[in-house]
Amino acid sequence: MDIQNIDNLRHSCAHLLAAAVINLWPDVKVTLGPSIEDGFYYDFDFGDIKISDSELSKIEKRMHDLLKKWEGFEKREVSYEEALKLFKDNVYKQEILAGIKEKGEAITLYKSGEFEDLCRGGHCEKPNQVLHHFKLLSVAGAYWRGSEKNKMLTRIYGTCFTTKEELDKHLWQLEEAKKRDHRKLGKELELFFIDEVVGKGLVMWLPKGTIVRNLIEDLAKKMEDEAGYQRVVTPHIAKEELFLTSGHLPYYKDSMYPPMVMDDGIYYLKAMNCPHHHRIFLHGLRSYRELPLRLAEYGTCYRNELSGTLSGLLRVRAMAMNDAHMYCRKDQIKSEFAGVLKLTIAYFELFGLKDYWFRLSKWDPKHTEKYINEPENWEYSEQVLREVLVEMNLPFKEAENEAAFYGPKVDVQFRSVLGREESMSTIQLDFAAKKRFNLTYIDEKGEQNNDVFVIHRAPLSVHERFLAFLLEQYAGIFPLWLAPVQVEILPLSDAQFEKAREIEKMMKKEGIRVQVNSQQLTLGKKIRQATLQKVPYMGIIGQKEIEASEPSLSIRARDGKDLGMQTVASFINTLKQTIENHS
Amino acid sequence: MDIQNIDNLRHSCAHLLAAAVINLWPDVKVTLGPSIEDGFYYDFDFGDIKISDSELSKIEKRMHDLLKKWEGFEKREVSYEEALKLFKDNVYKQEILAGIKEKGEAITLYKSGEFEDLCRGGHCEKPNQVLHHFKLLSVAGAYWRGSEKNKMLTRIYGTCFTTKEELDKHLWQLEEAKKRDHRKLGKELELFFIDEVVGKGLVMWLPKGTIVRNLIEDLAKKMEDEAGYQRVVTPHIAKEELFLTSGHLPYYKDSMYPPMVMDDGIYYLKAMNCPHHHRIFLHGLRSYRELPLRLAEYGTCYRNELSGTLSGLLRVRAMAMNDAHMYCRKDQIKSEFAGVLKLTIAYFELFGLKDYWFRLSKWDPKHTEKYINEPENWEYSEQVLREVLVEMNLPFKEAENEAAFYGPKVDVQFRSVLGREESMSTIQLDFAAKKRFNLTYIDEKGEQNNDVFVIHRAPLSVHERFLAFLLEQYAGIFPLWLAPVQVEILPLSDAQFEKAREIEKMMKKEGIRVQVNSQQLTLGKKIRQATLQKVPYMGIIGQKEIEASEPSLSIRARDGKDLGMQTVASFINTLKQTIENHS
Repeated sequence: MDIQNIDNLRHSCAHLLAAAVINLWPDVKVTLGPSIEDGFYYDFDFGDIKISDSELSKIEKRMHDLLKKWEGFEKREVSYEEALKLFKDNVYKQEILAGIKEKGEAITLYKSGEFEDLCRGGHCEKPNQVLHHFKLLSVAGAYWRGSEKNKMLTRIYGTCFTTKEELDKHLWQLEEAKKRDHRKLGKELELFFIDEVVGKGLVMWLPKGTIVRNLIEDLAKKMEDEAGYQRVVTPHIAKEELFLTSGHLPYYKDSMYPPMVMDDGIYYLKAMNCPHHHRIFLHGLRSYRELPLRLAEYGTCYRNELSGTLSGLLRVRAMAMNDAHMYCRKDQIKSEFAGVLKLTIAYFELFGLKDYWFRLSKWDPKHTEKYINEPENWEYSEQVLREVLVEMNLPFKEAENEAAFYGPKVDVQFRSVLGREESMSTIQLDFAAKKRFNLTYIDEKGEQNNDVFVIHRAPLSVHERFLAFLLEQYAGIFPLWLAPVQVEILPLSDAQFEKAREIEKMMKKEGIRVQVNSQQLTLGKKIRQATLQKVPYMGIIGQKEIEASEPSLSIRARDGKDLGMQTVASFINTLKQTIENHS
Repeated sequence: MDIQNIDNLRHSCAHLLAAAVINLWPDVKVTLGPSIEDGFYYDFDFGDIKISDSELSKIEKRMHDLLKKWEGFEKREVSYEEALKLFKDNVYKQEILAGIKEKGEAITLYKSGEFEDLCRGGHCEKPNQVLHHFKLLSVAGAYWRGSEKNKMLTRIYGTCFTTKEELDKHLWQLEEAKKRDHRKLGKELELFFIDEVVGKGLVMWLPKGTIVRNLIEDLAKKMEDEAGYQRVVTPHIAKEELFLTSGHLPYYKDSMYPPMVMDDGIYYLKAMNCPHHHRIFLHGLRSYRELPLRLAEYGTCYRNELSGTLSGLLRVRAMAMNDAHMYCRKDQIKSEFAGVLKLTIAYFELFGLKDYWFRLSKWDPKHTEKYINEPENWEYSEQVLREVLVEMNLPFKEAENEAAFYGPKVDVQFRSVLGREESMSTIQLDFAAKKRFNLTYIDEKGEQNNDVFVIHRAPLSVHERFLAFLLEQYAGIFPLWLAPVQVEILPLSDAQFEKAREIEKMMKKEGIRVQVNSQQLTLGKKIRQATLQKVPYMGIIGQKEIEASEPSLSIRARDGKDLGMQTVASFINTLKQTIENHS
């Protein structure tokens, strides 16, 4: 169904909702009810009646009842006076009518069944045949006309689809999105919080979140190390001069933190790591033997987003970026891009993100004013990027006139477990840096060569965003290797505390993240706590386990599966193998 | 020899220097020559004569010659006119004389041998018996009276000691200090640099420096993990409110970076990590079961030092601190301090710093205005800190009236390889935080308890300072586990390049930091390069090694020792064992 049709369907469903409400509560005043993304709403003045989510099924039922007689929408045009008479008890409609009159527009009414509403139109045909797959979702407050000076109305949200399958899928997505909300999971699993006293958009990583964050960072370091990257650490601030050279000042100034005036100049928090990395490239003469030079850093960048736009981990003001810059010759662009794509895919596979594709964003030779004027480099690099994508057999689209000013890029897209298309990261080629920073190397002929190409890449995005994705992806059920606590030992009673501590020590020594629940609680409660914390394995220890010839635990998986009694030694072995495989 | 005597000795030596210079170059004009820390200098106007370090031995020799007749210093007092006559060719002495006259002071001359100088006195007796152990060190320019408006004079620096042993030790220290200078080594070993474009006091860590930095950080994380610390990550900035609560504002404002005005308040870069950690403590209810809670973070702090005072890694504006805060009950203070001391000593031993001691800095009950008014806590905590130091059999001194405002502290001192006393870090107990931040926990009785004690500690100081210490300590010769490059493979010729690359891969897979020198150079030059870079082992590969039944290298240590041909497998084993022992 195309967008116009689905919007008509949803708008019709809003009429049906209003009809049902009026039918149930005749004194309620109807106001407005548009279709919105994924559904519709209708705003009512319920007067003194209090409506909550519990009433929704009653309304839904009435909607289905009334629908039987909804064969079509009848339109009629009326005069202003006539309309005023019709809506003589409804100040909201009167206000709308005044507006229509002022604009000199026609006043139209649409009727289906016994319900007639003031409306511009846009309905489905044969509602009683097509309007079956709807669901009311929630009740919320909403000011009339969106202004807090006006009366607070009652908004009822609903959704509607062409088929039952689509509706069910959407309802599942909504349920899952709630369960997988990274803010909710971050709180429940004690991973992070935002502290208004510290500041909005600034993430405070709790011990468990820090474990996950550090594991991802260590993984990236290891994989980048194997891929020939060299790590650097650069300051989070720099003088104005650096950002004037890079062009962040003045072009990006609004997104940067305010300046700090020191005794030797003006300093800024960095919004990107590239200027600092370029300065490292410029430190000392570079030889062709050093190219491609790959400088990597989990560098924290600062962006001055408006406080009102900040949200959880997805929109922050300080972000730790999985950043790196490659400095290479023109004939190395292709293999460097191939290397980054290989790394990106390895990350996707490791984190179980299966549905991904790429977008090659190109310049447009017809709009040369938007792009750096190096046609040969554009032609050459777009060609080799395309070749890499084809040769690696990767799914990709091409997008004209979507490149950055300074070169073509490959955007990395994926579909989340909820079916949303998300942008993970981007790999950008940069022809401009070499001139801005005068990047040169000594080539094979012993001459100073300025033809240095820079690649910007951050396949794991920033810690903050990536963690939000992962929480949604895993619904907080981290695989063993990423779980902040991998095993919780649950002693049946005080009698097993000492042995539990001994086993904890044994496992810690082997690098397992383990803890003992030594509270005075029943085993059932302890199991419940560990399950809520999504701890992969519980190791129960009672008299039977104590009497075993070797230290042993009865293992229970977080999904409730009983894995029986195992010696601690063999359990550790199994864990270590799983962890090594990043499972 | 006490300070007065050694100053007299050195001042006498300055006279002797002047006598020798006049004796060699009769037209030179003498000016002033005081004793200074560790030696003395004398400023001369050499006219058109150019003097360099190469003349120093000639002057020294003449000093020894003249000394034979220096039996003592004869003092005489003269009138202004008489003195003017004596120094009629010396404008400098005339200026000094005018100053003495203006103040109405006596004009005194001191003579030994044939050299008589205008002087206030302060000499040794019997110079020809005691003044043997001197050495001229260097020649430098110095403006007359220290003002750049005056003429540039020639300053000759020297040193002088009572015994030959002391002199030799001092000269050795000077030589070593030059060799071990962290700025020099940092440059030679490509560890870090300060980039004026980025800003003074902001360290740019190059790949090799980043390796060392990360290894130290990983070590600290591992050891702190074993000691029951939990890691957190907090933002580098926070709102004004937080620093008002902590008291950094206004008391510490001058040392903080300037404020940044954002749309939702005023933000500052943090100068310390404690306020952020306190906010983490405050996140959620704390139970007595969680205490002691140890929050650790390599947090970067920012201090607004004057640009002119910044120097290498020792005085910086951004520092990555090996920080942690313990939150504990009063009865846990002792064991927590013991834990920190144990960790500190483990670090010292691991890094080969053998000469260390502690200072227990206490309050003074007679100066209660300087200290938080909790006499019982002062008495109790000083007592338990003393007990810990005694029970652990650690060398320590006690210092009255040296505590922080908020509690007693233990300073960790050590003697550097050059014999200088240095302060490594400090362990501070804090009674004030609990009130300022309202730190509480639910105690065994289920009641909210505000008696939370905080311990601040950073045994490895900050990355920047610690690296400077380590570079001096090791003279850049890092032990194997810390060496940025552990093995360099040196192929004899192109014929061995391929095999060298294969072996490089084998070793990399085992986690060895290895590189191949594939330049077209003689083996001798390659060995020289690796030796200058202080690479622990060179693996030479020629025809003989290629023909071996298993992959093999001829190993040479950086001190030149030939360790013979070894199979790569057994070499890797040896390396891994050494690395595991942090050797």
